[in-house]
Amino acid sequence: MSGTEIKASVLHGAKDLRVEVRQLATPAADEVQVAVQATGLCGSDLHYFRHFRNGPIEVREPLTLGHESAGVVVAVGSASSTLKVGDRVALEVGLPCESCELCREGRYNICRGMSFRSSAKAYPHSQGTLQERINHPARWCHKLPDTLSLDHGAIVEPLSVAMHARNRSGLKSGSTVLVLGAGAVGLLCAAASKVAGAKHVVIADILEDRVKFAVENGFADAALTVPIPTVRPETVEDKLAYAQSVAESLKNLKAKDGQEVIGESAVTFECTGVESCMQTAIYATQPGGKILIIGMGMPVQTLPIMAASLKEVDLVGVFRYANMYREAIDLLASGNPLLPNVRKLVTHRFQGLGHVPEAFDTAAKVKDDKGDLVIKVMVDMAD
Amino acid sequence: MSGTEIKASVLHGAKDLRVEVRQLATPAADEVQVAVQATGLCGSDLHYFRHFRNGPIEVREPLTLGHESAGVVVAVGSASSTLKVGDRVALEVGLPCESCELCREGRYNICRGMSFRSSAKAYPHSQGTLQERINHPARWCHKLPDTLSLDHGAIVEPLSVAMHARNRSGLKSGSTVLVLGAGAVGLLCAAASKVAGAKHVVIADILEDRVKFAVENGFADAALTVPIPTVRPETVEDKLAYAQSVAESLKNLKAKDGQEVIGESAVTFECTGVESCMQTAIYATQPGGKILIIGMGMPVQTLPIMAASLKEVDLVGVFRYANMYREAIDLLASGNPLLPNVRKLVTHRFQGLGHVPEAFDTAAKVKDDKGDLVIKVMVDMAD
Amino acid sequence: MSGTEIKASVLHGAKDLRVEVRQLATPAADEVQVAVQATGLCGSDLHYFRHFRNGPIEVREPLTLGHESAGVVVAVGSASSTLKVGDRVALEVGLPCESCELCREGRYNICRGMSFRSSAKAYPHSQGTLQERINHPARWCHKLPDTLSLDHGAIVEPLSVAMHARNRSGLKSGSTVLVLGAGAVGLLCAAASKVAGAKHVVIADILEDRVKFAVENGFADAALTVPIPTVRPETVEDKLAYAQSVAESLKNLKAKDGQEVIGESAVTFECTGVESCMQTAIYATQPGGKILIIGMGMPVQTLPIMAASLKEVDLVGVFRYANMYREAIDLLASGNPLLPNVRKLVTHRFQGLGHVPEAFDTAAKVKDDKGDLVIKVMVDMAD
Amino acid sequence: MSGTEIKASVLHGAKDLRVEVRQLATPAADEVQVAVQATGLCGSDLHYFRHFRNGPIEVREPLTLGHESAGVVVAVGSASSTLKVGDRVALEVGLPCESCELCREGRYNICRGMSFRSSAKAYPHSQGTLQERINHPARWCHKLPDTLSLDHGAIVEPLSVAMHARNRSGLKSGSTVLVLGAGAVGLLCAAASKVAGAKHVVIADILEDRVKFAVENGFADAALTVPIPTVRPETVEDKLAYAQSVAESLKNLKAKDGQEVIGESAVTFECTGVESCMQTAIYATQPGGKILIIGMGMPVQTLPIMAASLKEVDLVGVFRYANMYREAIDLLASGNPLLPNVRKLVTHRFQGLGHVPEAFDTAAKVKDDKGDLVIKVMVDMAD
Repeated sequence: MSGTEIKASVLHGAKDLRVEVRQLATPAADEVQVAVQATGLCGSDLHYFRHFRNGPIEVREPLTLGHESAGVVVAVGSASSTLKVGDRVALEVGLPCESCELCREGRYNICRGMSFRSSAKAYPHSQGTLQERINHPARWCHKLPDTLSLDHGAIVEPLSVAMHARNRSGLKSGSTVLVLGAGAVGLLCAAASKVAGAKHVVIADILEDRVKFAVENGFADAALTVPIPTVRPETVEDKLAYAQSVAESLKNLKAKDGQEVIGESAVTFECTGVESCMQTAIYATQPGGKILIIGMGMPVQTLPIMAASLKEVDLVGVFRYANMYREAIDLLASGNPLLPNVRKLVTHRFQGLGHVPEAFDTAAKVKDDKGDLVIKVMVDMAD
Repeated sequence: MSGTEIKASVLHGAKDLRVEVRQLATPAADEVQVAVQATGLCGSDLHYFRHFRNGPIEVREPLTLGHESAGVVVAVGSASSTLKVGDRVALEVGLPCESCELCREGRYNICRGMSFRSSAKAYPHSQGTLQERINHPARWCHKLPDTLSLDHGAIVEPLSVAMHARNRSGLKSGSTVLVLGAGAVGLLCAAASKVAGAKHVVIADILEDRVKFAVENGFADAALTVPIPTVRPETVEDKLAYAQSVAESLKNLKAKDGQEVIGESAVTFECTGVESCMQTAIYATQPGGKILIIGMGMPVQTLPIMAASLKEVDLVGVFRYANMYREAIDLLASGNPLLPNVRKLVTHRFQGLGHVPEAFDTAAKVKDDKGDLVIKVMVDMAD
Repeated sequence: MSGTEIKASVLHGAKDLRVEVRQLATPAADEVQVAVQATGLCGSDLHYFRHFRNGPIEVREPLTLGHESAGVVVAVGSASSTLKVGDRVALEVGLPCESCELCREGRYNICRGMSFRSSAKAYPHSQGTLQERINHPARWCHKLPDTLSLDHGAIVEPLSVAMHARNRSGLKSGSTVLVLGAGAVGLLCAAASKVAGAKHVVIADILEDRVKFAVENGFADAALTVPIPTVRPETVEDKLAYAQSVAESLKNLKAKDGQEVIGESAVTFECTGVESCMQTAIYATQPGGKILIIGMGMPVQTLPIMAASLKEVDLVGVFRYANMYREAIDLLASGNPLLPNVRKLVTHRFQGLGHVPEAFDTAAKVKDDKGDLVIKVMVDMAD
Repeated sequence: MSGTEIKASVLHGAKDLRVEVRQLATPAADEVQVAVQATGLCGSDLHYFRHFRNGPIEVREPLTLGHESAGVVVAVGSASSTLKVGDRVALEVGLPCESCELCREGRYNICRGMSFRSSAKAYPHSQGTLQERINHPARWCHKLPDTLSLDHGAIVEPLSVAMHARNRSGLKSGSTVLVLGAGAVGLLCAAASKVAGAKHVVIADILEDRVKFAVENGFADAALTVPIPTVRPETVEDKLAYAQSVAESLKNLKAKDGQEVIGESAVTFECTGVESCMQTAIYATQPGGKILIIGMGMPVQTLPIMAASLKEVDLVGVFRYANMYREAIDLLASGNPLLPNVRKLVTHRFQGLGHVPEAFDTAAKVKDDKGDLVIKVMVDMAD
């Protein structure tokens, strides 16, 4: 088997990232070889970097991180007719089994046999994209039109999460949307709601700068900087009272005209994983509405569950995405005037595998050393 | 306005039920007058009876209980052409506003303007059916075919809850169903799943007699008597470990053939309102499945919510029913051999308004003084 | 019963419109009295005007036409708390029975007991809105925000048809849409698709001016002026060959970038009622797609039905709308930049009941005497 | 490449079936080798046999027919871990591309790249199952439980068609179903409706014996032998009048109790492909209902399409099935008492490849030479 030598960023322990040389085979018949050029850092990458684990999932062998990626095709397997050398592609890095019932029904994201790059869930681990080149099945490489940048290509991944969540929500045009958490995924949920014709998109975060970013860049119509209580609520009663007060503030927000009270949301995207936000979501959603659980956070939460069920507010799980890349690329390329400029999410850039540790250090902060907001950190890996 | 005198069972305080005389007007143009003849007692009735409140809802004026009822039409308003004197009807006792968006979309059960007999939520309260006669809009009185008894007519109410839950679940034929709680509603959820072609219907309860009842009478194919831990789990970890162990026992149950392991459920009906059951539901449901929250119980619960969302198991609220009475009556009348004999749910009967307090005393027990299982207590009120 | 005298335009026979005085009662408790101020003329109105019938439906008593209307509340019934004198409202003129199964499920548009103003289907006929004032149930009068004109209020009716069709289509964002027929409803279907995130909206019509109007005003991205064959096809084979050739032309259209071939549509809105268009729709729609049958036209059509069923293209009926007025008003008021300026549909205006015959004469033409395109004719009836 | 010699029934021209020897390779890694043992003959097989074409599709090379098949695994490819030698399997003989958008969404039945055994649509043709052995991907071979026969295994194919149609219909329990055509697929649609809780299942056919078969064997509750007009209707008006009269007869049928008039259907399965039946379907279906187009027949039909669209009756295409085999096997194995005995569909059997021509001769008849009804002809191919 002939091949080539490439460099890869490899995590050997908490904060122990090393640039190493790997042997890369020539691509198999159904694969293409892609020179990775842009990779956005994600919260799960950051968890692995800092703790050598992600919640309950421990890393069991050296692991290359990165899964929000785009690159350029540099070699094509013998059976891959859809792509050619030079094509720019967004990489869909999760490979499902494609034969279980869930895969056949189009819900491959929750396939039990999923192998997802940069995740330590399966063993041996599927290595991530923070390496010069990877071989990847051609059918999971989605060609980018000329009008889109590689940044766009990397953003397709979190945008697919947001669009999958929106589709699971059954959002109808004319509805009111609430987004809890103004990080990258929350902002993209807001964007996905706007292009689906949401009447009002309200966003909330504890960080005023994020809230301002959301409104100033057209992701949201109205926003709340959630006050952090001066005395931390200790009892369940106090915690719920706090969540209810935040929900009241959200419901009383005014629309852009300064007059109409926005009221409850039909769809709430919970993008923080924080217990008090889920509680707020339950109180702020209208009868018959839906809450999308997107934020990965506290695994166990104390929730006013009857307040949800008695008004038939459903708690809908969201895990990654299925069949969304093509639709996400089309949306980015559409010129849809309702779509905010998602490239503004990229607030920080680092060049080359050697700077990945710095990139992670920045991604761990809400503001950088200059005081500027950190949303999405991109690692560039030009040839 | 002429009228008639009738007797009513009226709750004046906790366990303070009195039989009183009321004046009943002649029915309005769109109403019929119904001699109530069968009323099943429900958990919410029991709560009002014992505490003069139902969770957070306090009773603010004397209240007649009862809402699972059937009777005979004794007078017909001038504009009611669909019913005639002598017709036997099941009473749908919740009157929605019929003009809000939820009503227009067919989700009248979660209408904010709902007036529901025997509930103290709205004020003045809408009086329940434990009285000799009531006037009720003709369109909310559903005619019973000759082949159905008045017991059937009363059971239409909880059966509608179960069928509404099943419809919200999107249950597909061939799926596996888990029912937590083998009380009346749980048993009816099992029955509604069987007629929809569920492959396996598993039921679980802490009471062995209930579990036996479910299997012996054809409501379930497999069952688990859930062991109560000898040492009550105190920490969240211990509680979740217990819930997981119950979920494992459920997944390892064998099908009727004694060979096939049933495995996870596609749809789980949680009919207990108990926190540990909801936790078990999350662990026992397959990726992409649904949990229907039917049991009203602990308003705030500590749940392994990420375990649900990461496998896209949705928590779906269920509150009463909408547009279900006709379908429920049709099912009862259909002679469907998959339908267990729901009349067996009526384990105890009491005759006349004077015996309502005794009826409630019995309904409060899981077994009566003779040691026989109590499922549904029916109050008969023959002419 | 006191009342007031009003003037009404009344049709007594084909093209026999007379302005007459009618007695109008004070509004009933649940009604408001509305001074009608803007009424768009619709194809069904025109049929009645020209033939004193609409297809198989004969007019059996003098009939006032008009049902796309908006006006101002001038009196309020005793039980109507939601509206006040001076409010501007869009009139939803179809009153369903509100008690049948279809009404309860939210599909009141196909209620068999529907009474629809200006239609001769029910007898006595429900009189239309081309009269100075009408009494109408308050709950079917939808308040307009200050930012919308009465023209907008009248357009809410055909826009509701388009939005109902779009909702029945299950259109997903990123999909390709084909609209056959660039009249008012076709243009509004295109608009409703754009705001739902359609990737391409293609429109086709035999009239080049309509096609140009659609593209120049932002209703469609690409368009085809359908060639009328020089020799009219006589046999079924020739007709189908013609339809196939039109479908081929549609599939080969280029996107706005001048490069991408648009291909088949996921959703096709058939708004002409013409047999050859339905045939074209079947050939032009992709496997798994949907055709919405909106145009009322030839009651019996010869269709290549197997070509549809073998690719699971569904033919979906559309009749008016249900629960759409509020959503349509919200859309018009939203400032959504994807929404074309629907007021441009109003190409001709006539002032006062005396000019209704002229208005109908104009509405009967595709171009007026000056050669200008006729799309929507509005009758103004200012105080 | 080592292999084995097998015998195959090969069609060389209309009615020119020859038994030939073929070389069969050892199964590839992901394949199993199956000894085919039961194959039901289908209408499309019969078309190929009689005309060497199926509608517009011409046979371009010698073709083995047969696709409703079950058999026994005799060899297992190196990568096939789910099946072992001796397993009895139902063969799902259509292999989709598994990479297009339709495949990923779970609608692989309408994949444009589908390769389906015994069909001449793709070239080279995919050879059918009327041969001693075939190699087939393991994942498309569905293991049969011990309680099911190979006949059951062969019936899984048409049952999957019926269940797919039922699932597309959205049939709700308690609904009325009409089936037009009491052949094998029509009877299975009736069976699939019964297990889904249909209130009434009405079946209609022009052949009285089929209708009797349906009712006597529990497939339908009520039935109509459709009268063939003594004078064949020539004009469209006469044809539609005939269809309307049949629809009236259907609506006036009485339920099993002899009293209740069944009325319109919520779901109509059109299984004949005959124009007058589709017309009847439109007239017989209730507002908001659905017509499933299952029968392959006249490619072009003259239909009262406005009568469908004005009551929002949708015409839903059905082509084969997707993800139905497992569910169909589960249903057959379930012991569901609502399921009629589907083995009774097998009215005629022929043993060995040498008798395939006779089998087709019989399958071409509605009654055999003894006057017995022909429904499904099975070709047995025991070892």
